[in-house]
Amino acid sequence: MNYYHEHRSEYLEGLKAFLRIPSISTLSEHKPDIRRAAEFARDELARAGLAAELIEGDGNPLVYAEWLGAPDKPTILFYGHYDVQPPDPLDEWKSPPFEPEVRGDNIFARGACDDKGQVYIQIKAVEGLLKTTGRLPVNVKFLLEGEEETGGEHIEAYVQSRPPKLKADAAVVCDTEMFAPELPTICIGLRGMVYYELFVEGASHDLHSGVYGGAAPNPIQAIAEILSALKDRDGRIRIPGFYDRVVPPSPKERDAWARLPFDEKEYTQNEMGARELTGEPGVPLFERLWARPTLEVHGIRGGFTGEGAKTVIPARATAKISTRLVADQRVDESIRQFTDAVRAATPRGVTAEVRVLHSGEPSLTNPENPFIRAGAQALQETFGKETVYIRSGGSIPIVGVFDRYLGVPSVMMGFGLPDDNLHAPNEKFHLPNFYRGIEAVGRYLEILGA
Amino acid sequence: MNYYHEHRSEYLEGLKAFLRIPSISTLSEHKPDIRRAAEFARDELARAGLAAELIEGDGNPLVYAEWLGAPDKPTILFYGHYDVQPPDPLDEWKSPPFEPEVRGDNIFARGACDDKGQVYIQIKAVEGLLKTTGRLPVNVKFLLEGEEETGGEHIEAYVQSRPPKLKADAAVVCDTEMFAPELPTICIGLRGMVYYELFVEGASHDLHSGVYGGAAPNPIQAIAEILSALKDRDGRIRIPGFYDRVVPPSPKERDAWARLPFDEKEYTQNEMGARELTGEPGVPLFERLWARPTLEVHGIRGGFTGEGAKTVIPARATAKISTRLVADQRVDESIRQFTDAVRAATPRGVTAEVRVLHSGEPSLTNPENPFIRAGAQALQETFGKETVYIRSGGSIPIVGVFDRYLGVPSVMMGFGLPDDNLHAPNEKFHLPNFYRGIEAVGRYLEILGA
Repeated sequence: MNYYHEHRSEYLEGLKAFLRIPSISTLSEHKPDIRRAAEFARDELARAGLAAELIEGDGNPLVYAEWLGAPDKPTILFYGHYDVQPPDPLDEWKSPPFEPEVRGDNIFARGACDDKGQVYIQIKAVEGLLKTTGRLPVNVKFLLEGEEETGGEHIEAYVQSRPPKLKADAAVVCDTEMFAPELPTICIGLRGMVYYELFVEGASHDLHSGVYGGAAPNPIQAIAEILSALKDRDGRIRIPGFYDRVVPPSPKERDAWARLPFDEKEYTQNEMGARELTGEPGVPLFERLWARPTLEVHGIRGGFTGEGAKTVIPARATAKISTRLVADQRVDESIRQFTDAVRAATPRGVTAEVRVLHSGEPSLTNPENPFIRAGAQALQETFGKETVYIRSGGSIPIVGVFDRYLGVPSVMMGFGLPDDNLHAPNEKFHLPNFYRGIEAVGRYLEILGA
Repeated sequence: MNYYHEHRSEYLEGLKAFLRIPSISTLSEHKPDIRRAAEFARDELARAGLAAELIEGDGNPLVYAEWLGAPDKPTILFYGHYDVQPPDPLDEWKSPPFEPEVRGDNIFARGACDDKGQVYIQIKAVEGLLKTTGRLPVNVKFLLEGEEETGGEHIEAYVQSRPPKLKADAAVVCDTEMFAPELPTICIGLRGMVYYELFVEGASHDLHSGVYGGAAPNPIQAIAEILSALKDRDGRIRIPGFYDRVVPPSPKERDAWARLPFDEKEYTQNEMGARELTGEPGVPLFERLWARPTLEVHGIRGGFTGEGAKTVIPARATAKISTRLVADQRVDESIRQFTDAVRAATPRGVTAEVRVLHSGEPSLTNPENPFIRAGAQALQETFGKETVYIRSGGSIPIVGVFDRYLGVPSVMMGFGLPDDNLHAPNEKFHLPNFYRGIEAVGRYLEILGA
């Protein structure tokens, strides 16, 4: 559609205006910016021709919009978020994070890819169809949140209340990546997760290791024993029953993954800066990353960590640990398994307490689902290449929530690239993907309405 | 000797003056106080009737003094230190740490017991004999340092140079404790130690656990694996060869330890604030504390330890670990064993580097040594109770250095009590022990000269 081509400079200016709003949800001093960003999105949706509003609640406002003029056609629910990560460390940015700058084929700004650029794709796709044809091929709803970077509690509570407003046939989530540049990609699976804090206590106060060493419990040593009991040296999780519900990828999916363009040396040495890859022996890399659960310790603290030597046996130590879950594992069951395994691994003399900080169910969609197939077709037509189906090792909890409470599959059609620096300095969005994303989403709606 | 009784109020005032000097060796802003404390000790020794001087070198001055008027008699080298620990946390002190206050039978101040009170005992014992008889029963030397709390590097280097000045038949070290109030105690064994830092690195930068979990090395997990490989759940050290040179206590020593007045419940629950004691199964408590080596982790740090959740696989993690050694283990050999064991336990994907921060050899003296026996007799006569022989789980590196470079045994005749709050707020010294300590040391010299 030529219309989209003609409006590229307008899209770029509009995106820049969106990116200039420092809508950082983790910092309370940005509350006014959060509201400005929500209003910006609402106004853009209204200008596009949808009925748009803010849904006010306990948290940051939700942006809701709808166009329901195609009664016999399916209804698509677009999801995205208008909040962004904090930009620090600021001194590593080549241009200021909230003064968007185009360099080469990319636009650099906090939120460029995650997720304002992709939200803007959705809005402009719908707008183009409405401006050129006066209608949409299917019914469309938008639900944008402003707390994705802080846990998304309030949108989850809202969706869990199953409001009639959210009734839909499928959700479209543009918050994932393409596997490689120019390679149209649909993500059909996400890992879930449970994030734990582990608190271990021994004596009531720190003890001198000369006087008490040999008799006193050591909470750091206890955490070491717990961690090495939960996962063996090879990366196998030793929590009883943990793998029982894990669904292996189909032979077809395994074959497709094996054919993905991938340079393991580049990935290991340049992208990760590591000497070698680790993980379960005999399991191929993408299966380890996408279709196998993990247990990782994210942080640990205890005792004396200043400069020099202090001979203390610490009274307490803590660790942050998560498990990533895959279909068909269940959050509740995995929490019980984890907690039981920690209890069994705790050595005598100390107490261990497990707290859950947050969790999200894993999700896996059948690639034969018609909404997924239509997405693959739209991408293929726009990018001129066959769409690949991948999964993601990360977690987008809203996808599990849509599945569970609205009963809809999520079509994860993302336009980010692996090097877009999400959550890092110099976040960028690839402009060719931005423009083609708008076309692809427009085409997607046309295919669904045909 | 009545002289000592008559001068008690003078001793108390002198000790207070010594304690008012905040000679904190770990804080460079106290350099002038360090010098004042050294000069104070030198002047006290000169006033007592010894030839006293400061030995200047790279570090804080050593205080040296001698009285050599008994050519046919043995020579005793008194050791002590005039520097003290920092007093923080200040708000937990009931009276200011450098404004000594007598409450009940105790004097409260930083350094009261460790070690100014005990240094003052030595000086006043010698002074009393010189003032009343005009001479000493044996030759006496003093060597006091001002860096004991920072590692004692410079005195070690000085002793290692074997200066003729330090020629002696035995050293007397008053820097240990009595096993219980009113129970005269000589310590015949000390654990040595090696203090390590362990640095583990995986990828070059922190990685997202969703994207890379299942492929990325995790340095915290690696430290957990190393720690649990080095020591098993029951407290047995698994470093190959580590126990090979460990000398078990004699049956006589074991019997004596079993007869020590001791309330395990009080020790566990009140003194340590622990639920139960840990350590090698089947090994009695005092043997675990005094005659068995240990491996303890003192501190660990890595990854995200702030509030809330961050799903990072950290690039690096560090731990501080020490091994306490017992006779006849050797520092150099144990470092090799430890380093080899860490290497063998390091999982793939990470590198582990071991650095030694400091070390000290273990020491064990024969209780039949005549200088030890005379010490036991002096204590027994002064306190009116049989002297017990114990060991200490802690480390006093100078004892090993005296043994190795001067060839002299150390008589560890200490007057501290287990609840004297060394290195903690409200450090105190029991005044009856202070006064009786002066008498006991005086009596010791008389016995040696008889």
